Amino acid sequence: MPVFDYDLFVIGGGSGGVRSARLAAGLGKKVAIAEEFRYGGTCVIRGCVPKKLYVYASQFSEHFEDAAGFGWSVGETTFDWKALVEAKEREITRLEGLYRKGLDNAGAEILNSRAVLVGPNTIRLTATDQLVTAERILIATGGHPAPHQDLPGRELCITSNDAFDLLELPKSILIAGGGYIAVEFANIFHGLGVETTLIYRGKEILSRFDHDMRQGLHKAMVDKGIRILCEDIVVEVAETEGGGRRAKTLRGETLLVDHVMLALGRVPNTTDLGLEIAGIHTDARGAIVVDEYSRTNVPGIFAIGDVTDRVQLTPVAIHEAMCFIDTEFRDRPTSPDHDLIPTAVFSQPEIGTVGMSEEAAARKYPELEVYRAEFRPMKATLSGRQEKTIMKIIVNAADRRVLGVHVLGHDAGEMAQLLGIALKAGCTKDDFDRTMAVHPTAAEELVTMYQPSYRIRNGERA
Amino acid sequence: MPVFDYDLFVIGGGSGGVRSARLAAGLGKKVAIAEEFRYGGTCVIRGCVPKKLYVYASQFSEHFEDAAGFGWSVGETTFDWKALVEAKEREITRLEGLYRKGLDNAGAEILNSRAVLVGPNTIRLTATDQLVTAERILIATGGHPAPHQDLPGRELCITSNDAFDLLELPKSILIAGGGYIAVEFANIFHGLGVETTLIYRGKEILSRFDHDMRQGLHKAMVDKGIRILCEDIVVEVAETEGGGRRAKTLRGETLLVDHVMLALGRVPNTTDLGLEIAGIHTDARGAIVVDEYSRTNVPGIFAIGDVTDRVQLTPVAIHEAMCFIDTEFRDRPTSPDHDLIPTAVFSQPEIGTVGMSEEAAARKYPELEVYRAEFRPMKATLSGRQEKTIMKIIVNAADRRVLGVHVLGHDAGEMAQLLGIALKAGCTKDDFDRTMAVHPTAAEELVTMYQPSYRIRNGERA
Repeated sequence: MPVFDYDLFVIGGGSGGVRSARLAAGLGKKVAIAEEFRYGGTCVIRGCVPKKLYVYASQFSEHFEDAAGFGWSVGETTFDWKALVEAKEREITRLEGLYRKGLDNAGAEILNSRAVLVGPNTIRLTATDQLVTAERILIATGGHPAPHQDLPGRELCITSNDAFDLLELPKSILIAGGGYIAVEFANIFHGLGVETTLIYRGKEILSRFDHDMRQGLHKAMVDKGIRILCEDIVVEVAETEGGGRRAKTLRGETLLVDHVMLALGRVPNTTDLGLEIAGIHTDARGAIVVDEYSRTNVPGIFAIGDVTDRVQLTPVAIHEAMCFIDTEFRDRPTSPDHDLIPTAVFSQPEIGTVGMSEEAAARKYPELEVYRAEFRPMKATLSGRQEKTIMKIIVNAADRRVLGVHVLGHDAGEMAQLLGIALKAGCTKDDFDRTMAVHPTAAEELVTMYQPSYRIRNGERA
Repeated sequence: MPVFDYDLFVIGGGSGGVRSARLAAGLGKKVAIAEEFRYGGTCVIRGCVPKKLYVYASQFSEHFEDAAGFGWSVGETTFDWKALVEAKEREITRLEGLYRKGLDNAGAEILNSRAVLVGPNTIRLTATDQLVTAERILIATGGHPAPHQDLPGRELCITSNDAFDLLELPKSILIAGGGYIAVEFANIFHGLGVETTLIYRGKEILSRFDHDMRQGLHKAMVDKGIRILCEDIVVEVAETEGGGRRAKTLRGETLLVDHVMLALGRVPNTTDLGLEIAGIHTDARGAIVVDEYSRTNVPGIFAIGDVTDRVQLTPVAIHEAMCFIDTEFRDRPTSPDHDLIPTAVFSQPEIGTVGMSEEAAARKYPELEVYRAEFRPMKATLSGRQEKTIMKIIVNAADRRVLGVHVLGHDAGEMAQLLGIALKAGCTKDDFDRTMAVHPTAAEELVTMYQPSYRIRNGERA
């Protein structure tokens, strides 16, 4: 029986890798984890955390505007971008420290190096050129913003990675993409006073979301002053004499902006990782192919998180980590459960959603009841803000099971989290109806829609 | 068979009365509703709605403070109390109009008069001295702030009714009471810049709430500058030479304030209503006694809402109205369900709660699992605000049923609403555990506490 240096070697110090290393080490296993950049991964360093902090920052301009309707006069306000960047940096450094401390306390060995596979159980640390062996290897290297190889001037563009740390707040920005990252950044920059344009090749932003969420958010963004160009793409980016960017679109527009940001999806981090040498299968997008226990085709090598391109979300990576640990180190084989994952888009207003969109449900079920409410949030009655909250409940008419709930409005992310419990437990519309309202809240609308707004029969609105 | 002027006569134009009248009229019944003051009742005119609007108004001072940590500089801010009062007045007038319109559209006759019982089926309208008869009479007259008959100087004090419409914003206020009304107003006035003191005879504010919520909110209020005097009461109020108030407490303190507000509970509106003439039973607190179908002891006379002192909440009154209509006019006998009512305290931070407190559950169940998290909300990491979010889940160890969930923190009211669905559906802790987190939210903490913080066995912490 071969003797390995480690019971588990984790490549990648993001959410999934760190959780796996910490749990395995906590079980008394000999564990090492290698990260070439900063511990915390996409979520902490250049994703969820800084994004949400910037969302908070960008919301203050609306607070200042809203205050007037409530009797407040606000003096001149100014915004210091560098102060925000520094504050963000302090916070993610603090969090990075907590991640390291958690690993350290659990007894995992922390390596600051890129690690690449050189064989089934063997890894090379590029920082020291050292070779180490491990009984099990977990690849949790995450992903990165998709490049746009065919775009002339792509090297003049930024991605979400760069956006957090721009030296100066741009006066104008063009964001290419229609997914949640593009949409969230558009709202952040707009809220911070940047003239913002979104360009997306699709018919409507946020494909696969419920159409009411997509249209409702589109309208809210346009109403507040964000320009949205759908069914168009950037075909060329050039530098202007002043150091700005000139972007040409397929439909013939020319936009002069300080920055062009590409948010065209994310791709798995699988290049130069030694996957070919180890013989690990990847799919057409470069993602590592795994089975229902996060096993690659090579015995002893596993992969979780964004690098597997199942569902690219922090909590999913953590869940996959916990399932991996249960399966491999606790003798409790557990497959990750990717069904009914609640999610949020931290736009302004937010989208919170769990379960099927009306469109997806209509394709699957012969008859749906759709409950839909659109209303001005209470705060807007005094602030005068022209925005609407939209709430939808999609119900299978046959058994009253709630298939999906979708919210556009303040706190929709918090709502999605708790609606997630109800849907995961298989609640019916009757369970919603039986629940007493909490007044005055926005969410009470979700338990007081007693009659369907309309029905969908065989995919058609009845 | 006697012929009555009306199928249904409703006394009181608040949430319960208006809903009843509207629904019955919508069913084709001949309906009248009488209200002596303004339609909308406590909720719209002097309760939930103006309260929440003032809560929003009072939150802006924290927004202005928090902005600095995110890079914003805010110029001098001033607050115009009269502008808020006027804005509130416009909004509740608009809502009152919607209530009247709803009644009118349904075909109910709207009477602007006090109505008193003069017999089992007979009512006198005091505005015109007219007598009318009805087959069914519904009493939905609500309640009012409890007076403090024994307090010398009580006539110098205000109640929540007056607080919304003070001619000027006071510089200082003393609020007597420890219930949610006292606590909410203390937070409102503090947020608007008023030097605020709360005095309460009990050991801790918000009796019957979970102790962590009570202590956590107490601490948060004190930390932001609200003075709280527990185990003390006001024993005398006098006018000062400058027109202010001098309040003496049992423990010997003397407070000089602009206003003393009494928030010592609410009592049912049952005086001078003709209840004795009609022979209707009331309880020791003056509440109308009803059975499980909201029937008084007199055939044909019913009562719902605060006047019955079951659970004094708007949605409960509306629910009782719908049950009354189902029972009496739709031949579907339905009893109001008062179990597992989620509620919120719109303090700052908010409390959202559903189900049993730890203390109540400990008295009933032999073993509990208690899951508890206390953390700084993400926004506070940059704002620097010293406040903690507290979340608790109380679980029956025997069957893993979730008995109660309690949240102190932002958006806790919205959370309580949706947690209410899960608890009403009888969800277990396993249903919570199975739910994927939404990151970054506060509520994700509620689905990621996998191990109990402690257990309670036979009422004792294990």
